[in-house]
Formats: sequence, structure tokens, C-alpha cells
Amino acid sequence: MMSNGLFITLEGIEGSGKTSHAAMLAERLRAQGRPVLLTHEPGATRAGQAIRAIFLDPAVSLQVVAELLLVLADRAQHVAETLKPALARGEIVISDRYADSTTAYQGYGRGFDLKLLGELNRLAADHLFPDLTILLDCAVETGLARTRLRTNAGDRGPDRFEGADLDFHRRVRNGFLTLAKNDAARVRVVNSERSREEVFADIMRLVDELVRQRWR
Amino acid sequence: MMSNGLFITLEGIEGSGKTSHAAMLAERLRAQGRPVLLTHEPGATRAGQAIRAIFLDPAVSLQVVAELLLVLADRAQHVAETLKPALARGEIVISDRYADSTTAYQGYGRGFDLKLLGELNRLAADHLFPDLTILLDCAVETGLARTRLRTNAGDRGPDRFEGADLDFHRRVRNGFLTLAKNDAARVRVVNSERSREEVFADIMRLVDELVRQRWR
Repeated sequence: MMSNGLFITLEGIEGSGKTSHAAMLAERLRAQGRPVLLTHEPGATRAGQAIRAIFLDPAVSLQVVAELLLVLADRAQHVAETLKPALARGEIVISDRYADSTTAYQGYGRGFDLKLLGELNRLAADHLFPDLTILLDCAVETGLARTRLRTNAGDRGPDRFEGADLDFHRRVRNGFLTLAKNDAARVRVVNSERSREEVFADIMRLVDELVRQRWR
Repeated sequence: MMSNGLFITLEGIEGSGKTSHAAMLAERLRAQGRPVLLTHEPGATRAGQAIRAIFLDPAVSLQVVAELLLVLADRAQHVAETLKPALARGEIVISDRYADSTTAYQGYGRGFDLKLLGELNRLAADHLFPDLTILLDCAVETGLARTRLRTNAGDRGPDRFEGADLDFHRRVRNGFLTLAKNDAARVRVVNSERSREEVFADIMRLVDELVRQRWR
């Protein structure tokens, strides 16, 4: 293996709880004295921030292909600048979204050819794939309702995916679940329609198991 | 055919004269009463301007793959927002750089796999290829010397390609010449180591020929 680090990703639809649970997970692991890097896609690098600004620009109407290529460019920079160096230093890297989001959103959601998308994902990821992916699964209605609460609270405006229709989000959710079914050893589904404590307990169980397996 | 327009691209290394000749060509055709759209890559659309800003940001060290994906994203937006609509309106579209630059710079120059690059170029271009490509060819030393003059005159700062080494530019030049050899009917080489008037006369001869063939 190229590193002693562990690479964990959190995936799921809007409002599934990824961002909160990624932060809680980072905090818990740090409290255990482990070196942790908490990161996210898109927008974790300087180039990525500029890319993310394009997604959020209401005056830009992005083509499906352009959106895909930008997400992948963001990933290529993230992998090279952030993820691989942290893993090489032996850290536990936690990323809020990664390659599975591209498959779910641009592939299952927007209908981009899955075979070519897989090839492009491998290219952008430079063959770096997670040791563990936690898929926070909830009904689309639950996720969007949570997002709406956040938006109303002034946390941030709705982004382009949040504005798209329910059918789109259902395709994305089903895409994530298909990914989990096809790669059950890596992608573990956690039902996030429960209390934050119950969900987090499941996440910690999966992460503890991974840490024990790899680091003893 | 999807349109009555004509799509002409100007290609070549830095300092080969593309930008001046594209402007002269647009002016001449407009003087003939023809509808012309003069455009360029990268950066002709709003998303493209944001992408171009990433290339010009000295604090960003782009991965080869990220650079390629960004160039392609710029192209996908350019094709959909600018090129196809203008061609559908029956205009003569002149683009200062297009898909051949990607093959020459990221393929021959940076060493990205040419087969996959071809597939990605077709994807980003949405199968739109030029009716005529004029390759302005000059020695790398000539082109860079012209660029240096421009930079010293305060026209603009040197960009990242201009800062790269001579070998890189030689690979790019040879890449363009290989493209011209492999697709001689579309890509016409014009020696740009001559006076502006001589070069432009050759360009006009090629364009007049195309216009006569297509429009009579």
C-alpha cells in the first residue's frame, strides 16, 4: 500500500446528514488522539473553490458534460493536493462527498453514460478509492425538508441540486443504493432517518471496525 | 447538415499570429457583408472566464488531468452557448483555438493519452468539428520571441504555456503538424514566418475557397 492512512468518505443525497456527521466523526477521532484530515468536495482546493463558484453562479447554465468535467477537475486537484499527501502522512482522511457522488448525481441523476463516467472517475481519482464509504440514506422528502430548514435559517442558499425536481433526487438516491449493492464491502448503508445519536453510533461502529482491521 | 454556417478555427503555438489573423479575417469577411462571429478558447463564456482565471492564477499548480478537464469543460460550454447557436443562425464562426489545441498541448505537449483525449474531445465538442482549420506554423523560437515582445510592451503577462520550456513548445508544434498530416483536408498549414500581408493572403485564399465550395 502507498500509505498508512485511512480514507473514509461520507455520501448521500442533500440533507442526509453527511456534513454534520463528518464533523462529529473528525472530532471523535481527534479526541482519541488520531491524526485526522476533514475535507469535502467540491471546493477544498484553491482551484476547487473557483470551480465551486461556477456551480453556484446563477448566471451560468452549465451543460451536463461541463458540470461533469468540472466536478472531475475539482477531484483531480483534491486528490493530488490534499488527499494523497494526508494519506501518505498516515492520517485518517474524511471526505464529505467523493467519486460516488459523481456516479450518483451526474450518472444516475443526469443520465451520463455510466461506463465512460467510471473511466473518468478513475482518471480524476488517480486510482485512489476509499477504504470505507458510509452512505447516509434517507427518503428524498426527509432530506429536502432538512435542507429547506437550513436554507430558511439563513445557513446558505439552496444550491442547484436542491432546486432540481424530486424525480432527479430519487434517481440520485437509487444510484447511491445501487452503488452500495454493487460494492457492499466498501459502501455501508446507514439509515439516517433516525436521531443524530443513533446514526452516529452506527457510523462509529463501522469506523472502529475499519481502524481495528487496519491498525490493530 | 445541422446549419448553414461555416466553422473556421485558427491554431498554432504561442506567438504564431492566430489572434491578429483571426481579427483581420473577421474584419475582411464583415467588409464583404457576411455575418461573422469571432470567438476564442478558453474563456469565451461566463463559465469559461472563470475557468480561464484558474489557468492564470499563479497560486494554483494544476494537475495535467485537471488542466485537461477544465479545457474540455470550457469547450463544452462554448459549443453549446456560442458556437452551435451562431452556426444555426448561418454565421461564419471564427475561433482562435479549439479542439486541436487540446490535442497539441495536453496530448503531445503534456503527454496525456491521445486515444482517451480524442474520445474526451468528441464528448466536449458534442461532435462539432471545424469545416476548416488554419494552422499558423512557425519555429518555436520565432513564436516565443513575438510573445516576449508583446509581454514587454505591457500587452499582457506571460501565461503558463509561455513560461514552460522550449522542448514542451516543440512537442506542441510537432503535435499540430502531425494533426495536419493526419487530416490534411481539414487542417491547412500556413507558414507564419513571413510578413503579416503574405500570411493573411494565404489565409484569405483558403477561406475564399471554402466559402465558394459551400455557398457558391
